[in-house]
Amino acid sequence: MNRPFTFINSAMSADGKISTRERKQVRISGDIDFDRMDELRASSDAIMVGVGTVLADDPSLTVKSQSRRDVRKSAGFDEDPVRIVVDSKARTPLDADIFKKGTGMRIVAISSSAPKGKVDALSEKATIITAGDEKVDLALLMGQLSSMGIQRLMVEGGATLNWGLLSNGLVDEVFSFIGNIFIGGNSSPTLVDGEGFLKGDLLPLELISSETMEEGVLLKWKVLNK
Amino acid sequence: MNRPFTFINSAMSADGKISTRERKQVRISGDIDFDRMDELRASSDAIMVGVGTVLADDPSLTVKSQSRRDVRKSAGFDEDPVRIVVDSKARTPLDADIFKKGTGMRIVAISSSAPKGKVDALSEKATIITAGDEKVDLALLMGQLSSMGIQRLMVEGGATLNWGLLSNGLVDEVFSFIGNIFIGGNSSPTLVDGEGFLKGDLLPLELISSETMEEGVLLKWKVLNK
Ligand SMILES: NC(=O)c1ccc[n+]([C@@H]2O[C@H](COP(=O)([O-])OP(=O)(O)OC[C@H]3O[C@@H](n4cnc5c(N)ncnc54)[C@H](OP(=O)(O)O)[C@@H]3O)[C@@H](O)[C@H]2O)c1
Ligand SMILES: NC(=O)c1ccc[n+]([C@@H]2O[C@H](COP(=O)([O-])OP(=O)(O)OC[C@H]3O[C@@H](n4cnc5c(N)ncnc54)[C@H](OP(=O)(O)O)[C@@H]3O)[C@@H](O)[C@H]2O)c1
Repeated sequence: MNRPFTFINSAMSADGKISTRERKQVRISGDIDFDRMDELRASSDAIMVGVGTVLADDPSLTVKSQSRRDVRKSAGFDEDPVRIVVDSKARTPLDADIFKKGTGMRIVAISSSAPKGKVDALSEKATIITAGDEKVDLALLMGQLSSMGIQRLMVEGGATLNWGLLSNGLVDEVFSFIGNIFIGGNSSPTLVDGEGFLKGDLLPLELISSETMEEGVLLKWKVLNK
Repeated sequence: MNRPFTFINSAMSADGKISTRERKQVRISGDIDFDRMDELRASSDAIMVGVGTVLADDPSLTVKSQSRRDVRKSAGFDEDPVRIVVDSKARTPLDADIFKKGTGMRIVAISSSAPKGKVDALSEKATIITAGDEKVDLALLMGQLSSMGIQRLMVEGGATLNWGLLSNGLVDEVFSFIGNIFIGGNSSPTLVDGEGFLKGDLLPLELISSETMEEGVLLKWKVLNK
């Protein structure tokens, strides 16, 4: 199956949490990591998040550095990569920052169970891709993104989308910055939530690199998909 | 307040899980990490776990290396450190490996709400320390351990006991080995579960060291208690 080269970028606490149990966004990494993330964004064809992240954090997902925007533009690209929300029921708010800020194409990936009224309204803000019946069929979506020319896809969470992609064998690499805090909580979102793998069936990784950065550690993993 | 120097040693997946959602023990680290853990055990006065870990994994918590046992013995210590279970309701099984294997003192720390029959039965296997009414009062327990001469305490989990200790400011250092697997799961135990810290009140850490080891990374954190 054709799909983009796909990597997750995430910041987690030293106990694997990506936000608090209130699902409030927490600053886990510092300026150097933000700049690294901005560079990853600028070098990607598209950036994907789950609707849970849009509802919790309302990120714009734009490239922040003007020089990186200029480089993209002079190479003939939009200043921002394509921004994609995975959103089975078309719950993305019409006034989300992803629509208000930045330039270029927005995609909302829905399932055929999304209410027509909401889809119609969103279609004035974004390109709609339908994949799957109840939930977005991520493998199908990846094939469609690939055929649209998206070759390098950055995923910025959250916990449930990461699980959906990883458990379907759709991720090639994972960057995780580990920050110098404990968040704790048996209901706080972690790097990978969802259902979870069972004992005989854990997802193997290969450590590509590990470097200390600011007050934490940046790990890069290769996902060893079957 | 007097308390032992206390450190947590744990192995977690790259997404912060310490076992699967089935709470089945998973081999996250390899022989080198096991040997490092054995050395930490041998150099500690006592080893503590929560009753959840006893019920899930039935660990013996003994020192495995004969040479380390010999060193302890010739220095006048028991071959195994004191082994402590934190167990408000005296649920530790009478046939737990912690009683059957190894040498030296066992302590079961209970609350005054533990059923008398169970406490009586356990008292034939272990020294009973009562601290707290409904749940074990960990700060009180630490004071009692300290006055018994326990100066260096190793905590081997699990998720809920780690939270109890960390949230009460009772931990000095944390070793976490990060293995090359994803476990996932929104209900899988993580390095620190419990209630969780809130956004304004996260527990700060200082990275002491980071080294690649076998297929993963060993991090050592200092806990910056208030
Ligand atoms: N620290 C970081 O790096 C970072 C980054 C991003 C987010 N976060 C945090 O993560 C939290 C949000 O995570 P989340 O898990 O709640 O939400 P999420 O992963 O952003 O979005 C999950 C949602 O995507 C939709 N979805 C549709 N099809 C799916 C599929 N096949 N597989 C998986 N998901 C699918 C589902 O909603 P529908 O069923 O309605 O479609 C699902 O609930 C927030 O607290 C945020 O702050 C942290
Ligand atoms: N990978 C690793 O390094 C590692 C190490 C250890 C464990 N584990 C895994 O961790 C899981 C077990 O973790 P768990 O969270 O279920 O159990 P746990 O942390 O081992 O034990 C928690 C229990 O301790 C008792 N407790 C009494 N007073 C307490 C207090 N003040 N604060 C906190 N706890 C108190 C409570 O039971 P009562 O109310 O009955 O007293 C509580 O439920 C297992 O799946 C095991 O495999 C992994």
